[in-house]
Amino acid sequence: MATAPQCRAAFQHGVRRLLMANQLVGQANMAIAAELIEAGADFYCVVDSVENVDQLARYFSARGLRLQVLIELGMPGGRCGCRDTDEVMALAERIDSEQALVLAGLEGYEGVVHGDDPERSVRAYAWQLVEVAQGLERDALFEHPAPLLTASGSAWYDLIAGVFREARLGQQFVPVLRPGCYVVHDHGIYRQAQREVLARQPALQRGLKPALEVFAQVLSLPEPGLAIVGMGKRDIAHDQLPEPLRRYREGDERARPLSVEGWRVTKLMDQHAFVRLPAGDEAMGGGRVRVGDIVAFGASHPCLTFDKWRRLCLVDARLEVMEVMHTCF
Amino acid sequence: MATAPQCRAAFQHGVRRLLMANQLVGQANMAIAAELIEAGADFYCVVDSVENVDQLARYFSARGLRLQVLIELGMPGGRCGCRDTDEVMALAERIDSEQALVLAGLEGYEGVVHGDDPERSVRAYAWQLVEVAQGLERDALFEHPAPLLTASGSAWYDLIAGVFREARLGQQFVPVLRPGCYVVHDHGIYRQAQREVLARQPALQRGLKPALEVFAQVLSLPEPGLAIVGMGKRDIAHDQLPEPLRRYREGDERARPLSVEGWRVTKLMDQHAFVRLPAGDEAMGGGRVRVGDIVAFGASHPCLTFDKWRRLCLVDARLEVMEVMHTCF
Repeated sequence: MATAPQCRAAFQHGVRRLLMANQLVGQANMAIAAELIEAGADFYCVVDSVENVDQLARYFSARGLRLQVLIELGMPGGRCGCRDTDEVMALAERIDSEQALVLAGLEGYEGVVHGDDPERSVRAYAWQLVEVAQGLERDALFEHPAPLLTASGSAWYDLIAGVFREARLGQQFVPVLRPGCYVVHDHGIYRQAQREVLARQPALQRGLKPALEVFAQVLSLPEPGLAIVGMGKRDIAHDQLPEPLRRYREGDERARPLSVEGWRVTKLMDQHAFVRLPAGDEAMGGGRVRVGDIVAFGASHPCLTFDKWRRLCLVDARLEVMEVMHTCF
Repeated sequence: MATAPQCRAAFQHGVRRLLMANQLVGQANMAIAAELIEAGADFYCVVDSVENVDQLARYFSARGLRLQVLIELGMPGGRCGCRDTDEVMALAERIDSEQALVLAGLEGYEGVVHGDDPERSVRAYAWQLVEVAQGLERDALFEHPAPLLTASGSAWYDLIAGVFREARLGQQFVPVLRPGCYVVHDHGIYRQAQREVLARQPALQRGLKPALEVFAQVLSLPEPGLAIVGMGKRDIAHDQLPEPLRRYREGDERARPLSVEGWRVTKLMDQHAFVRLPAGDEAMGGGRVRVGDIVAFGASHPCLTFDKWRRLCLVDARLEVMEVMHTCF
């Protein structure tokens, strides 16, 4: 998870071991973490500054609690995290001196690597994580019996896992990968990332299948070759423009999928999508498009689409609703 | 409003006269509108196609209801709407032949004008709306005693209002403007649009003041000149990058605002903002920035920020919470 409220929601739904791969900052967030720990959660967060370590030590010692923290190792020009080994070691000593804090591992995020050869940079970063963790272990700075070593977003998890395996990490550490996009996968950015994973790992037989779709109806066919659909930035993420997948004729009880070959979203406004249609209705198979046709779209990416909806429907292959799920964020 | 569920939410909160400035498409949406009408709402929606007119007539006559519709006049290359006067007149005849439909006005949206001289195009479009409405009136195609003539988003409402006034519309029609962004205003796109309104209308003494802010804390200061703040695309709209407004020291009971002069958001990830700080801490007035500092950001634009939150806090000048408001979408 990335925030204290997200951890609370997960705990309320039965997840007892919580890794917040982010800094725990602010009294309100610390209070949430403290309540989770008091309620029995095995809670971890990350630190990357003396200032934050001091704040956490003060708060958790006042509450009579011990907080498990992982040091974040970042990279120059990256996001959060200590910039080099010396910083990590100094911070570990500081944590060691604080009774309220338990150094329980090392954390990184390789999704912000730069450069022309990201594959090489990601592997180099993963090795750096391993070496820094081994240094901390050697200096007996971990207080946790099974320290965590964790990295990986949804694009490079195979490389991170590969380095962790090569390093035989499992003997000293608990390796934890953190790709999130697999939950429903994606029709854009992460589909491309997944293709690259498969290209790097020929032994993998199959990749993930995107499972999140947003349905909307054609509102207007105002000009040849243009459909306006009732779906906008308020309904779907727009890191990339949504991808038309299929359409259905409203009222068709068998929900037969009709083609959207050649359809292309060209613009997304708050409540409307502009869809360019191929020249000639014949080209579309499945009959002339009509006002009211229901179009399924793929989103990129899922997290920002979840934000838009308070309820998601789990459907079977015939689009029958099997379960209505409530989103928490 | 733009959708049937939005109209239902407004009605549930006491709004009885509902203009859905969008096509009413699909059985589920028509059912919502029918329920609103049965519950006493004065409900209007727009139409721009024979196909949709037929669908609506079939649905509402089967339910024994009459639906008030406005014809949408669009523009070539624009969004929804009839592309010319002939199309409007033909559609009005069709509506006239349907017992279940009441032609109650003419609708337009000038926010999609193109060209080098948008001011002139917007005024020309407003005049076209007036003339088409007068044509419909002349041919006795309005069935409503006080037909609506409506246009205007949040960027050009002064020009639309100006034309409606010059045309002395009030004698024949009920003119309705539809800017929405005034509700809380904006720190980006619409602030710029508002400046242009004030430049065009020197008689206006004051413009709108932005009233929506998102607060987040500094998580990390990993390199000189860089702050990572715990606010991302999951928390704030990103049509434009958020604007840092002020900061506060956590724990300062008087909530004294500290300067963020020279701060600039350079990148927004899902849960993090990258903020470039000016060289030298001295430049920041109000003291060195610290992990935990609370930063207020302005958003562009509000609708897409509302989406992100289930509750908004109404605060006074000292940031004391006066009311917690629940969002409906």
